[in-house]
Amino acid sequence: MNKIIISQINTIAGDISFNKEKILECIKKAKNQKADLIIFPELALIGYPFGDIFIRHKSIIERELKALNDIAKNTENITALVGFAEPTKDANKKPFYNSVAVIQNGKIIDTVRKRLLPNYSEFNDYRYFEPSDKVSKILELNGEKFGILVCEDSFNDKSFFKDKCIYKIDPVKELMEQKPQTLINCSCSPSRCGKEYIKNGLFSSIAKKYKVNYIYVNQAGYADNLCFDGASRIYNTNGELTLRAKSFEEDFVITDNFQGEINPLPEGSDKKFELIDLKSDYEKDLDRTYKSIIFGIREYFRKNGFKKAVLGLSGGLDSSICAVLLSDALGKENVWGISMPSRITSKESKNDAKLLAENLGINFFEIPLADAIDPLKSMLNTAFTNIETEKFEKSTTIENLQARLRATLLWSISNEHKQMLPIATSDKSEAYIGYATVNGDMSGGFAPIADVTKTKLFALGDFLNKNRAHKNAIPQAILEKPPGAELKINPKTGKTVCAEEENMPYEFLDEIIWNVETKGYGFDELIKHEFYYEKNNNLSIEQKKEWINKFYWKSKCAVYKWHIIPPSVVVDVKSINSVEYRQPIISKVN
Amino acid sequence: MNKIIISQINTIAGDISFNKEKILECIKKAKNQKADLIIFPELALIGYPFGDIFIRHKSIIERELKALNDIAKNTENITALVGFAEPTKDANKKPFYNSVAVIQNGKIIDTVRKRLLPNYSEFNDYRYFEPSDKVSKILELNGEKFGILVCEDSFNDKSFFKDKCIYKIDPVKELMEQKPQTLINCSCSPSRCGKEYIKNGLFSSIAKKYKVNYIYVNQAGYADNLCFDGASRIYNTNGELTLRAKSFEEDFVITDNFQGEINPLPEGSDKKFELIDLKSDYEKDLDRTYKSIIFGIREYFRKNGFKKAVLGLSGGLDSSICAVLLSDALGKENVWGISMPSRITSKESKNDAKLLAENLGINFFEIPLADAIDPLKSMLNTAFTNIETEKFEKSTTIENLQARLRATLLWSISNEHKQMLPIATSDKSEAYIGYATVNGDMSGGFAPIADVTKTKLFALGDFLNKNRAHKNAIPQAILEKPPGAELKINPKTGKTVCAEEENMPYEFLDEIIWNVETKGYGFDELIKHEFYYEKNNNLSIEQKKEWINKFYWKSKCAVYKWHIIPPSVVVDVKSINSVEYRQPIISKVN
Repeated sequence: MNKIIISQINTIAGDISFNKEKILECIKKAKNQKADLIIFPELALIGYPFGDIFIRHKSIIERELKALNDIAKNTENITALVGFAEPTKDANKKPFYNSVAVIQNGKIIDTVRKRLLPNYSEFNDYRYFEPSDKVSKILELNGEKFGILVCEDSFNDKSFFKDKCIYKIDPVKELMEQKPQTLINCSCSPSRCGKEYIKNGLFSSIAKKYKVNYIYVNQAGYADNLCFDGASRIYNTNGELTLRAKSFEEDFVITDNFQGEINPLPEGSDKKFELIDLKSDYEKDLDRTYKSIIFGIREYFRKNGFKKAVLGLSGGLDSSICAVLLSDALGKENVWGISMPSRITSKESKNDAKLLAENLGINFFEIPLADAIDPLKSMLNTAFTNIETEKFEKSTTIENLQARLRATLLWSISNEHKQMLPIATSDKSEAYIGYATVNGDMSGGFAPIADVTKTKLFALGDFLNKNRAHKNAIPQAILEKPPGAELKINPKTGKTVCAEEENMPYEFLDEIIWNVETKGYGFDELIKHEFYYEKNNNLSIEQKKEWINKFYWKSKCAVYKWHIIPPSVVVDVKSINSVEYRQPIISKVN
Repeated sequence: MNKIIISQINTIAGDISFNKEKILECIKKAKNQKADLIIFPELALIGYPFGDIFIRHKSIIERELKALNDIAKNTENITALVGFAEPTKDANKKPFYNSVAVIQNGKIIDTVRKRLLPNYSEFNDYRYFEPSDKVSKILELNGEKFGILVCEDSFNDKSFFKDKCIYKIDPVKELMEQKPQTLINCSCSPSRCGKEYIKNGLFSSIAKKYKVNYIYVNQAGYADNLCFDGASRIYNTNGELTLRAKSFEEDFVITDNFQGEINPLPEGSDKKFELIDLKSDYEKDLDRTYKSIIFGIREYFRKNGFKKAVLGLSGGLDSSICAVLLSDALGKENVWGISMPSRITSKESKNDAKLLAENLGINFFEIPLADAIDPLKSMLNTAFTNIETEKFEKSTTIENLQARLRATLLWSISNEHKQMLPIATSDKSEAYIGYATVNGDMSGGFAPIADVTKTKLFALGDFLNKNRAHKNAIPQAILEKPPGAELKINPKTGKTVCAEEENMPYEFLDEIIWNVETKGYGFDELIKHEFYYEKNNNLSIEQKKEWINKFYWKSKCAVYKWHIIPPSVVVDVKSINSVEYRQPIISKVN
């Protein structure tokens, strides 16, 4: 049997010399191990996703091809599968094939070209790649036959996807006619809620159906809001999982019998989502969400040369969760939590923020805002008297001013200190309906929880309190009080206004979002749909209609904000992150 | 001969009922005129670009198809060509064809499907559409034969594009085998620098080559950073332009002999760009740039329910040009220019800002910043003493603080007043190298000049002073002084630091940008290239290298900022606007 290496590397888009050195290093290590075959992920040499960079920076492609030749020179006595962008050299075609070079003893003996090109959601393959219309050749190695696939090529199995197959051909089926004993899938597959369940089921069923060993090699890394979770693996001819590399980190795994260590996945990753109960579905995804975001923060900071983060700590849920995630990703000594209370911030909130920071061991101090707000208010009064045009009756001006002043301080602090980024703490539920302040809580160099809804954040808070080494780091009060930015006082109650009073219950809002994103429900379907919140709370149909209308109206006005969300980590099944979802600002959906 | 109507309408993506009413209105008008044929632009019924909205809002498609049937019912005694998204109803295909319904006497008698699907630059057709692999049928009307094309179908003519043809087939050639006397092209074609020259040459040469009348119907409108300029037209069988609708507005043009009024294009639109001389090329494009931006502002505001704009007036070039454009787009009474001087703002700048506002007749007042900056500085000092980590030697903190405070005031003012948007005044040269402040001059609800380079802005200033009814509205001093944000004092000179001291001469920077964008030059090619600035200024090779290196280093760090540029108007040949160009933030290009 061949000795095979799964080389689950972490590359940088366009950084040919970095990627090449990493590949060469792995090949050297593999040769030391007397391996027969080393497998790299899809597009390993140019890095994925590389976007449009080759259009303005043509030399990247020349350098890539040169690097591929340099790699070839280092393959005596070994076969290497290296993903690269292969120029089509045909003006009538897309610029590249998405190819895997089969390199052996100093020569590129074959190139396997991707046949199925995904162009939905976060994928844009057809913008760059020409699909191959040929069944690829089989690689014979020491009497063993390998069929090679590139990522999506494996995702059109009729027995598994049934009527959801989106392509006409099934490259696996066509490849299997040549009777390989083993299939190899070179991939760059981002982690998302529910995806692991599909991948595991699909690969296992293909292995079993064709009685073939199935080797899946995925990139580990983060780029452009996407986390690639690694977790490369092997299924045997019975469809059983026999080896799995680490999740969310690089790995270099050797096997000579299609078996090896089965590293754990984040808890719940391989569970099925029923799409019927929001809360229990969220709970299944908490560990993966946590690990994705931690990895995303760490990679974004590291690859862009940052080490430290500064964020405002309000004593509320969003900023508290962000603080835990940043502390776990960057180290507590690299996080500065700053309490910036205004006159209406409650004593409890201030204490909760402080207690959280103490529990985490992050840096913490307080800057009261009042002294800066007062002169700004008087400036604004001057401005307002100078502008004779219609005003809003209920002004959010002063509320937003506080949020913007806080962000200004955070940006100033990051400006002054090396390798430091300010953090946007706004969450997905709020972004969805525009309840996040431009240049305020939605402004920062990174937005850790921009794809996590509020109800999921509450569950994540509980999860973190139970599962981190330091139990209950988040004060219980933070997980129990109703969310609200403490930006204004309700004159009737004398208390700060909570967000649900202004919008709608988060449980209801998140259930709308879930149904719109995963089921494509429109207004009529939402009205017909029986919400969990409805069942449990005796909701009137008038109230339900009002909230659903509010959702449409508010989310229409929020699309502008979706377009300027800072870099984040996509974790949900679907997202409003522009890496995946594109709604024109000028548009009408209902 | 048939009486033909070119119906150059302005639609809204996803707003089926609005678009349908508009189409019905035009058909009614056409019937009153006893027209035989009325032609609408590509995707007129669903609106273009509609992005991903149909994925989450499936009911849009049902409503679209219903609307198409309603339209059909209103076509007795007339033929209408209506662009729409036609579901493929085949899971193995993309969701839609990009189709034109041929409707006649109450029935949809044919659907012509787009064959060539652009997926480069601002186009993403292949994300949504299945290409048609059939030559479309000829429409016979009163003995006259019409061949129907959808936009890109006309853009693969070998005699015109030579080796730059990017598709294998030429739908025009194939269609012409059926010998139509007239070609109709239903389009949604955005206006960009140099594009008119290509379109005019292409359509004219096709008409002449095949001895066919050529009718081009383009949408007028703005969506998602793109301006659709209308300017629908007819070329006769000699390739001569015989009719042209208005630019940048809706139009309804009747002809019964392929002739009619030839409305003027923005000056210089049809000139060729040589790509060898930056300045003279810029000058050719000023009128079109001006009209595109004016139209873009007006449409963005109108379609989103805004009427008024507030911007900071620094007495510098960027804000002055923005003020003129806003005033011309929205009316002077709807623009508030606010001078927000700090302690180091020169008297001259303050006077220039005031004089500009007076010349334009826009609303104007002053808010001195000092009173707010001082308490913020002391807050920051407290913060800085609490943070024990490495600082930058040259801090830009206080400079940026001023810019952010200004934006905070503008956002607050827009918060307080109905239908008002704050304006981001940063330009393309500065955005390219990150010399624009996050939450400062690059923050706003709209960014009028985000795709205009600094040297082009100087030329645009001259152009506006010469060509607007009110001559020389921009004080000459603004067009003569070196650009700089007046954010800090050079201790050596005692004067405020100008931008070119910190970066490089704008002429040089803009020439780099031009060569990278239009020629795809990399580092080596830029070094080899003889810059105009170089010829005229005795530049040393060391200095040249330093500046080019600085460009790469700074633009790499600026990619984050490109991702959060507010809605704008794409006007240049190429742009860093994410509607067109996608560079991952984590990437390396050099």
